[in-house]
Amino acid sequence: MNHSSDTWILAAQCPSRLGTVDVVTRLLKEWRCYITEQQSFDDRLSQRFFIRTAFHPEGGALDADAFQAAFAARAAEFGMTFELTAPGQLTPVVIMVSKADHCLNDLLYRYRTGQLPIEIRAVVSNHPDLEPLAAWHGLPYHHFPITPETKPEQEAQVWQVIEESGAELVILARYMQVLSSEMSEKLAGKAINIHHSLLPGFKGAKPYHQAHAKGVKLVGATAHYINDDLDEGPIITQGVEPVTHADTPEDLVAKGRDIECLTLARAVAYHLERRVFLNDKRTVVFAR
Amino acid sequence: MNHSSDTWILAAQCPSRLGTVDVVTRLLKEWRCYITEQQSFDDRLSQRFFIRTAFHPEGGALDADAFQAAFAARAAEFGMTFELTAPGQLTPVVIMVSKADHCLNDLLYRYRTGQLPIEIRAVVSNHPDLEPLAAWHGLPYHHFPITPETKPEQEAQVWQVIEESGAELVILARYMQVLSSEMSEKLAGKAINIHHSLLPGFKGAKPYHQAHAKGVKLVGATAHYINDDLDEGPIITQGVEPVTHADTPEDLVAKGRDIECLTLARAVAYHLERRVFLNDKRTVVFAR
Amino acid sequence: MNHSSDTWILAAQCPSRLGTVDVVTRLLKEWRCYITEQQSFDDRLSQRFFIRTAFHPEGGALDADAFQAAFAARAAEFGMTFELTAPGQLTPVVIMVSKADHCLNDLLYRYRTGQLPIEIRAVVSNHPDLEPLAAWHGLPYHHFPITPETKPEQEAQVWQVIEESGAELVILARYMQVLSSEMSEKLAGKAINIHHSLLPGFKGAKPYHQAHAKGVKLVGATAHYINDDLDEGPIITQGVEPVTHADTPEDLVAKGRDIECLTLARAVAYHLERRVFLNDKRTVVFAR
Amino acid sequence: MNHSSDTWILAAQCPSRLGTVDVVTRLLKEWRCYITEQQSFDDRLSQRFFIRTAFHPEGGALDADAFQAAFAARAAEFGMTFELTAPGQLTPVVIMVSKADHCLNDLLYRYRTGQLPIEIRAVVSNHPDLEPLAAWHGLPYHHFPITPETKPEQEAQVWQVIEESGAELVILARYMQVLSSEMSEKLAGKAINIHHSLLPGFKGAKPYHQAHAKGVKLVGATAHYINDDLDEGPIITQGVEPVTHADTPEDLVAKGRDIECLTLARAVAYHLERRVFLNDKRTVVFAR
Repeated sequence: MNHSSDTWILAAQCPSRLGTVDVVTRLLKEWRCYITEQQSFDDRLSQRFFIRTAFHPEGGALDADAFQAAFAARAAEFGMTFELTAPGQLTPVVIMVSKADHCLNDLLYRYRTGQLPIEIRAVVSNHPDLEPLAAWHGLPYHHFPITPETKPEQEAQVWQVIEESGAELVILARYMQVLSSEMSEKLAGKAINIHHSLLPGFKGAKPYHQAHAKGVKLVGATAHYINDDLDEGPIITQGVEPVTHADTPEDLVAKGRDIECLTLARAVAYHLERRVFLNDKRTVVFAR
Repeated sequence: MNHSSDTWILAAQCPSRLGTVDVVTRLLKEWRCYITEQQSFDDRLSQRFFIRTAFHPEGGALDADAFQAAFAARAAEFGMTFELTAPGQLTPVVIMVSKADHCLNDLLYRYRTGQLPIEIRAVVSNHPDLEPLAAWHGLPYHHFPITPETKPEQEAQVWQVIEESGAELVILARYMQVLSSEMSEKLAGKAINIHHSLLPGFKGAKPYHQAHAKGVKLVGATAHYINDDLDEGPIITQGVEPVTHADTPEDLVAKGRDIECLTLARAVAYHLERRVFLNDKRTVVFAR
Repeated sequence: MNHSSDTWILAAQCPSRLGTVDVVTRLLKEWRCYITEQQSFDDRLSQRFFIRTAFHPEGGALDADAFQAAFAARAAEFGMTFELTAPGQLTPVVIMVSKADHCLNDLLYRYRTGQLPIEIRAVVSNHPDLEPLAAWHGLPYHHFPITPETKPEQEAQVWQVIEESGAELVILARYMQVLSSEMSEKLAGKAINIHHSLLPGFKGAKPYHQAHAKGVKLVGATAHYINDDLDEGPIITQGVEPVTHADTPEDLVAKGRDIECLTLARAVAYHLERRVFLNDKRTVVFAR
Repeated sequence: MNHSSDTWILAAQCPSRLGTVDVVTRLLKEWRCYITEQQSFDDRLSQRFFIRTAFHPEGGALDADAFQAAFAARAAEFGMTFELTAPGQLTPVVIMVSKADHCLNDLLYRYRTGQLPIEIRAVVSNHPDLEPLAAWHGLPYHHFPITPETKPEQEAQVWQVIEESGAELVILARYMQVLSSEMSEKLAGKAINIHHSLLPGFKGAKPYHQAHAKGVKLVGATAHYINDDLDEGPIITQGVEPVTHADTPEDLVAKGRDIECLTLARAVAYHLERRVFLNDKRTVVFAR
């Protein structure tokens, strides 16, 4: 979305307890910060509280370090973790792909036109195919082939790129490889995958072919954080597309591309705008 | 919808073979029937051909028996089965329910206002709760309680009502009981069930609770023909509804009601308008 | 939906000014009220601030009068108006209809099953047709015929029913009459109408026929507060339905019924849950 | 869609008359062509008949000229016009743009990956901005600036490119200029425009700003054939996107981009697959 150039975001969560909203809003008032949009939610099941506040300092400037120090003292009392995001802040990102280019193409377009507040540091793939696309956008492309035998080494190479690039978010834009448990754990909460089905339906390989065999009338896509359980990570958002008896499995693959692109891009935008909170195996998403 | 008072429907299917459309359209021309809407589809996988033709006799009248006899002779050559539906023809129906009344209420409204070309012969339930609703619409209500021990007897009672009523379609409007294999086989292709999830996701009991636990961002409903494999019958149509982290399982139940009603009503309308064809474990649906 | 039996709602608005969130949240903390869900929004264009807070008193009970008095003192400083809604509070409602019954039928179903927190005090119509439907639900039905000449008298009769019934919300469930400016003004902000088009497209009479003539591929419905400018009142929510070349104007009327029901019911629910705020000619809707 | 490499399309229309389907299907049988998908529709209002037939010759090959000659003789009797499209046939296209690049980028991606059966002969613009994008795809880019005074000359230049390129379809991918009546007439039925609103709502300039001022809860896009009445040409397809009070006009512009791309691409695909027929001021679309 088109954030105003002076809008800061404060996102926080903690166990449910009286005063959780007050501790946020009082500080903002004291610091003369005007709240333009706020959403909070208390999950009675997990007994956790989540809040997202968009604000701008009345004077225009905010000493982020001092503000965070001041807030940390009070937040500690509530066991509250928080993240402050400055206006215009770009998140460093690594994108992982395989051979299919539609999601990468879509993300690169949004990146190039400033629609996503990201700075793409690298594109990583187990295939060489998408290098020209990355090159046209002036991005480094790392080709790390993978076989069952070389998986540990390949993942180490991928991890090195992620670490050295300083990426805070990894986007699996149809990477098509199952990550090892170790890799998944390292990336927990900071890697978003797009799966081409309405999870939990049609997990695993070739979901459109599964969908065709089953004769469903809707296909879809699911963007989720990865965890160490394949296609079971916390869901951020899902999209859906009607299909008919006349669609072959290949037609489903083709029809699904658009909804995969849109669903992944929306999930990434939500994440970057600090609208998404992990809540055990589920997410809280303060969507717009 | 089949509003015109003079519109006949001819629905047919057979193995794929040259001339399958011609055999239908030529006869209609010979009988001076004008085709107002026609859809045909050939499934390369199952190698079967499906056709639905809406037409009206130019003279206004059609001798249905003679027409069918004439067509039968030619259709036999192609191994073609067919069904002719006259304008204004009402299909006799039995509706099965449990305690939830939303789908029944919706079907009765559409029935009362002539939106569905059906004649409801009876409402059958394993609970007494919905009798007043049926009564207000002047419909017989059969209360057949069921326990694991009495299931065979109960199903025999249900079957007797279906048989004696002359029902050609049974609508399971949230019946909530698993039918026996015998019952399912008897009802194959002539019983439509609504399941409150996007099948194949969340089969079985309490799908909204399953959906909540999984943290999905879309819930849905699936209308399908029943077969002897629970929640696995051929899908006719599916509907979907966005949900959020703030929805409790009870909220999902509430949000899902509308989409269940709409999805079931649409499936029933498609069936009655002869838009649906069984194609092994899948369906061909000439939707509008 | 507001399921929890102990959830109160505080809805407020005022001109934009530092401290508007704080004045709400601080009081709630002082009164030991736990905030379970909060949404606020500042409209930079109109320079107005809106907030909706769902909370429950930690002790279980809340002295509403005392709370309101305490809040009123502080709110005054901000020029803030507010409304406190107790758990389980039912809003008295009058429904106005003409001959079409689908929206009334839908609202009565939701009312009968407790899906809407309303108490229907009367159904008013310019035709006698829907009396049996109202009667089955045990509701008084007032038939006030209308002609161009008798319009002022008829509106006076309607107004008397609304006043005497104590209705706080009037639902125009396909009333099909243009209200006079005087009547519209009296009902401003407390009467919701459903118009069967995607406003501002196809204002006025027979919108489905207009839509057919134009050859649109989507039809829709718009729920809005009435004001004295026909079909121009602030929009609460809109729904949409795909149509095809094969749909006649009558088909569009039929296809539109479901989306009209759903859109009106959603608008009414949003209003009752205090999710809707008037913002000059537009609305702020804290949807779920 | 993913047409089989051997699928031919025959699209035809004529005044309503007995035998219109038969004249098509009989010839196909005689030529031993197997019909894999057929849709026909008779518009009672305009009294016109439309048919689209997908088929493949049983022998594999078809002498297109001979087939067309044979069909022309019979079609003439019915006043039937028709078009035969061979498998794999690419339609020559010219794309017109202004400064906004999202629709062009989307079309070029689909072109590059073979998702649309087109051959782009040129990109024409009144601004130089999008030349690099065209260049990366190896496409000629014609920059023809326009002022009120130079409009006739500019349009002559554009027309020359279209003519010399042999384009059979012109895609106005956010061209943002009103074409003259002369130009519109020349392009009638062979130029598709995307307008960024749900027509007939918000015609003319800055529709998202109009939508914001009106406070609508849905925005959309309309793909239509151009005619000489601004934003009034026959509609092919429309798309829709929910928006909220929190969206500024700039947010609507941003949110609308995706639905504009999808709607335009779908309209172009429908046109190329011969699914769209002009029916006076409306269209018949045999969608999938």
